[in-house]
Amino acid sequence: MSNAVPMSHSRSFQTHLVLPPDTNHHQSIFGGRVLAYIDEIAAITSMKHARSEVVTASFDSVDFISPAYAGDILELEAMVTSTGRSSMEVYVRVMSRNIKTGVEKLTTESFVTMVAVNKEGKPIPVPSVYPETEREKQLFETGLTRRQLRQAKKESTKKRRSLFESE
Amino acid sequence: MSNAVPMSHSRSFQTHLVLPPDTNHHQSIFGGRVLAYIDEIAAITSMKHARSEVVTASFDSVDFISPAYAGDILELEAMVTSTGRSSMEVYVRVMSRNIKTGVEKLTTESFVTMVAVNKEGKPIPVPSVYPETEREKQLFETGLTRRQLRQAKKESTKKRRSLFESE
Amino acid sequence: MSNAVPMSHSRSFQTHLVLPPDTNHHQSIFGGRVLAYIDEIAAITSMKHARSEVVTASFDSVDFISPAYAGDILELEAMVTSTGRSSMEVYVRVMSRNIKTGVEKLTTESFVTMVAVNKEGKPIPVPSVYPETEREKQLFETGLTRRQLRQAKKESTKKRRSLFESE
Amino acid sequence: MSNAVPMSHSRSFQTHLVLPPDTNHHQSIFGGRVLAYIDEIAAITSMKHARSEVVTASFDSVDFISPAYAGDILELEAMVTSTGRSSMEVYVRVMSRNIKTGVEKLTTESFVTMVAVNKEGKPIPVPSVYPETEREKQLFETGLTRRQLRQAKKESTKKRRSLFESE
Amino acid sequence: MSNAVPMSHSRSFQTHLVLPPDTNHHQSIFGGRVLAYIDEIAAITSMKHARSEVVTASFDSVDFISPAYAGDILELEAMVTSTGRSSMEVYVRVMSRNIKTGVEKLTTESFVTMVAVNKEGKPIPVPSVYPETEREKQLFETGLTRRQLRQAKKESTKKRRSLFESE
Amino acid sequence: MSNAVPMSHSRSFQTHLVLPPDTNHHQSIFGGRVLAYIDEIAAITSMKHARSEVVTASFDSVDFISPAYAGDILELEAMVTSTGRSSMEVYVRVMSRNIKTGVEKLTTESFVTMVAVNKEGKPIPVPSVYPETEREKQLFETGLTRRQLRQAKKESTKKRRSLFESE
Ligand SMILES: CC(C)(COP(=O)(O)OP(=O)(O)OC[C@H]1O[C@@H](n2cnc3c(N)ncnc32)[C@H](O)[C@@H]1OP(=O)(O)O)[C@@H](O)C(=O)NCCC(=O)NCCS
Ligand SMILES: CC(C)(COP(=O)(O)OP(=O)(O)OC[C@H]1O[C@@H](n2cnc3c(N)ncnc32)[C@H](O)[C@@H]1OP(=O)(O)O)[C@@H](O)C(=O)NCCC(=O)NCCS
Ligand SMILES: CC(C)(COP(=O)(O)OP(=O)(O)OC[C@H]1O[C@@H](n2cnc3c(N)ncnc32)[C@H](O)[C@@H]1OP(=O)(O)O)[C@@H](O)C(=O)NCCC(=O)NCCS
Ligand SMILES: CC(C)(COP(=O)(O)OP(=O)(O)OC[C@H]1O[C@@H](n2cnc3c(N)ncnc32)[C@H](O)[C@@H]1OP(=O)(O)O)[C@@H](O)C(=O)NCCC(=O)NCCS
Repeated sequence: MSNAVPMSHSRSFQTHLVLPPDTNHHQSIFGGRVLAYIDEIAAITSMKHARSEVVTASFDSVDFISPAYAGDILELEAMVTSTGRSSMEVYVRVMSRNIKTGVEKLTTESFVTMVAVNKEGKPIPVPSVYPETEREKQLFETGLTRRQLRQAKKESTKKRRSLFESE
Repeated sequence: MSNAVPMSHSRSFQTHLVLPPDTNHHQSIFGGRVLAYIDEIAAITSMKHARSEVVTASFDSVDFISPAYAGDILELEAMVTSTGRSSMEVYVRVMSRNIKTGVEKLTTESFVTMVAVNKEGKPIPVPSVYPETEREKQLFETGLTRRQLRQAKKESTKKRRSLFESE
Repeated sequence: MSNAVPMSHSRSFQTHLVLPPDTNHHQSIFGGRVLAYIDEIAAITSMKHARSEVVTASFDSVDFISPAYAGDILELEAMVTSTGRSSMEVYVRVMSRNIKTGVEKLTTESFVTMVAVNKEGKPIPVPSVYPETEREKQLFETGLTRRQLRQAKKESTKKRRSLFESE
Repeated sequence: MSNAVPMSHSRSFQTHLVLPPDTNHHQSIFGGRVLAYIDEIAAITSMKHARSEVVTASFDSVDFISPAYAGDILELEAMVTSTGRSSMEVYVRVMSRNIKTGVEKLTTESFVTMVAVNKEGKPIPVPSVYPETEREKQLFETGLTRRQLRQAKKESTKKRRSLFESE
Repeated sequence: MSNAVPMSHSRSFQTHLVLPPDTNHHQSIFGGRVLAYIDEIAAITSMKHARSEVVTASFDSVDFISPAYAGDILELEAMVTSTGRSSMEVYVRVMSRNIKTGVEKLTTESFVTMVAVNKEGKPIPVPSVYPETEREKQLFETGLTRRQLRQAKKESTKKRRSLFESE
Repeated sequence: MSNAVPMSHSRSFQTHLVLPPDTNHHQSIFGGRVLAYIDEIAAITSMKHARSEVVTASFDSVDFISPAYAGDILELEAMVTSTGRSSMEVYVRVMSRNIKTGVEKLTTESFVTMVAVNKEGKPIPVPSVYPETEREKQLFETGLTRRQLRQAKKESTKKRRSLFESE
């Protein structure tokens, strides 16, 4: 898995029409629906990068900034922003667009970690990624910090978990 | 919204049979599917506590500890563990159970913040929650720290976002 | 398959938010949707008891007592109440809960017969079940009568069917 | 609601391809899926008869005679076989057909009671039904007996229920 | 594959209740939903004729004549109208019926070409079809013309495609 | 509706992971599923152009060139290529990509006519479109011919239909 792959190679887009079954009583989309869309595009994006099957290892924390309503268009953009040996960090941005006004709003953005796996579900190496544009470089360079925060978070979670285990 | 409500009041359970459409090519469940289940039970749990409609404000970071496969049973447990003025922190634990062996494994656990809203989607006050058992007390008392971390995370995200906005 | 299993071992819970796609034009849930939920929890419950795959052999008659509406919460409870050689009777109770008022109503209750099967779909033996609480004992002791009624019903159906067969 | 309607007017047909998501691990269709199909065709059939919205009042007991597998074709036939003031009894027969061999098997048959309702969900009168062919006459004439059995069953269920209510 | 099969053998019917998730904001059904229903019944119809698996080779152009709304009943009728060596032309007619008024309207009609395939997805021979009624004869006799138009259309499409390929 | 809109404004992309429930027994995607995806992206694309709700008026004939399999990625691209008073022609191209090999194949391409409508479902005017790149110009200039062919086809269909109407 020698050859590095440009960030633009895995960049993917998705548009969805928000439909009543995706929404609650006030016609605003369920958070779980948005997360399922994010997971799907993160999987596709990392499969394009790694040319293998993948599984979702983790979601960084996700804030839902503004609601999207039935009749709105949801636009997702995703790309692999950083790689480890077998893991890939995927940045996903979700915008909602009101059809009548054309106004676009940030719904949420998220960093998802996907891991390339073989048929037995065991991690396998992935090519590294390199940025080309300014924006890609920012996403790439801040990747290491996010990776460290994630590691630290994981340690502290493990501790809390052992507290509950007694039960 | 004066009366405090015991944690046990909102406690909810969910069981799902993992089916092929929920899984990838290796028959292991999609992360997005698990997150959608978590969001659904967090919504139900917080609706029971607040007796109102709710929206998902945020998911804390989520680690997928072990995969669940087609044919496994997924068991979710959720309860409101801490409250603000209009927001509720919901703890959700997801276990998978292999039918043949009976072995149970932790799939993931998550803290979701739900906000009670009126018909216009505006935040409205919720009753406070109080713990009764030892385990409930641990979840309750660590709630404040998690709230502060969340606030800090949100600030730093805002900063990063303004970086990208130029684009 | 010697060891008897307590009724409480298989007891399972399910909560669902009733959504518009589950409902007709008047926003009241479809009977077929409720039956599909009942079948799902009956399968899970009997799989937990038998530690094997199962198929649905029959549903006793089902009365829909009161409607559930979009926005309500549906709460299901199920447990194995009686066993034969390969068949398990599962009792399922479905309640609906109005979020605003907190009022709970019986939607329906049902006895489902599930049969444990091997890979070829052939019936295989299941452990027997024993009750512990008062309520469990009532459900257990009335099981034999229900089994006999079911058998009688099945005979008379066979007769009617042969009538139609000529056509 | 004066004019009687012939049974043939409401007679409806449905064919479905059994797909993997409808089936369990052994590729045999879920009972709940079959019941949801039965409820859908019973609703359509009774809407054609009553020219109004309907709700499902009850299912008579259902025996699943033989399994249907992924790749099979499921064929449903339904017609209104008997009417009360606002209720309609709908007979539904489900056959499965193996594509390769052409062999057809009875999966199940069922009597569903649907009730015509107005916008408020209140029962409204329906036209009566009359049979024309031999087979229709058999289904029609045995309707009264089934109606009485249903009534008797409902009484005895009410008694059992009051037993549990204490809990 | 010697024996010819009468057109009536493959004739199939389908009824669907149009539900909110099938519709847009104005409660009128999505064209894509109708096309998916057409493809499903065309597959079933041709599987009944060929007694094998099939794939969709093409749809002739489809005009959506009049909308169907949530609460309407959609009625599809399909039959194999013409055969080649491995291909079958299936005629599908879609009507919508307003429950209250009983009025039926033509939604669309369509000619779909299905090809019988073996396990490797390679075309295999199908029995020929013969018409019996007047209407069947009209559909059968005009089949050759449609086949030639389709072939011509396919050629001209290939040319256009090669224009774009450069890009 | 004075201002013309560039073709690039409505251009939209979609990527889907082909999953087992989208496929038949041989794991190859259903034609109806592809058509539903095409209709969805055509609707989104034309809503972006017209800033209004839309309905599907027609699909030109569609050839399925090569199958896509479970595990493949489906990539759709769509743009408004020509406009009338209230109608928009949308060109949609569907490619499938094998993950392991990276090989891309044309699945199908299609011209869909969408009509902008108001709340009553009545046609309303749309802005005109103009091409910028070479490829856009080709698609734009050949639009008039396609429109005429469509009109001619519609006339001849009307005639055939009146033949069947007698029945
Ligand atoms: C959640 C939402 C209602 C908050 O609105 P707001 O204008 O920020 O309201 P406030 O500032 O009064 O915040 C209300 C509460 O939400 C909390 N909150 C807001 N954003 C939060 C976040 N990202 N994480 C955790 N809590 C959050 C606030 O701390 C506050 O809590 P408190 O009342 O207990 O003190 C709003 O951001 C929203 O509508 N987001 C979209 C929700 C949605 O539709 N989700 C589904 C998918 S998009
Ligand atoms: C259920 C099924 C496996 C029974 O097979 P069978 O050849 O009749 O086997 P048996 O006669 O040995 O019966 C096995 C058990 O099922 C019970 N059973 C069979 N039909 C039953 C019915 N209609 N209602 C209740 N119990 C039934 C028998 O009483 C017996 O119970 P026991 O072992 O506890 O004494 C078979 O009828 C079948 O496969 N049906 C389809 C199941 C299915 O696929 N359902 C989903 C939708 S179609
Ligand atoms: C349809 C398919 C099997 C044809 O394969 P092929 O290699 O072209 O095979 P052939 O040339 O032998 O054609 C087989 C038959 O299909 C017919 N056919 C092929 N393409 C066709 C088209 N676009 N429209 C109508 N008929 C077509 C041929 O005329 C021939 O008919 P006949 O046997 O009756 O004379 C192949 O194109 C395919 O697999 N397409 C994808 C099908 C699919 O997966 N559809 C779902 C969504 S992608
Ligand atoms: C499409 C529809 C709104 C057209 O209504 P109409 O009364 O024929 O209106 P008009 O004659 O004014 O036609 C409006 C435009 O649609 C175009 N149009 C109508 N039918 C068409 C067809 N089958 N193919 C292509 N264009 C068509 C007309 O050419 C006209 O275009 P222009 O305004 O650019 O000149 C109407 O036929 C309809 O509602 N159909 C059902 C749409 C639907 O619900 N589809 C989903 C599944 S059923």
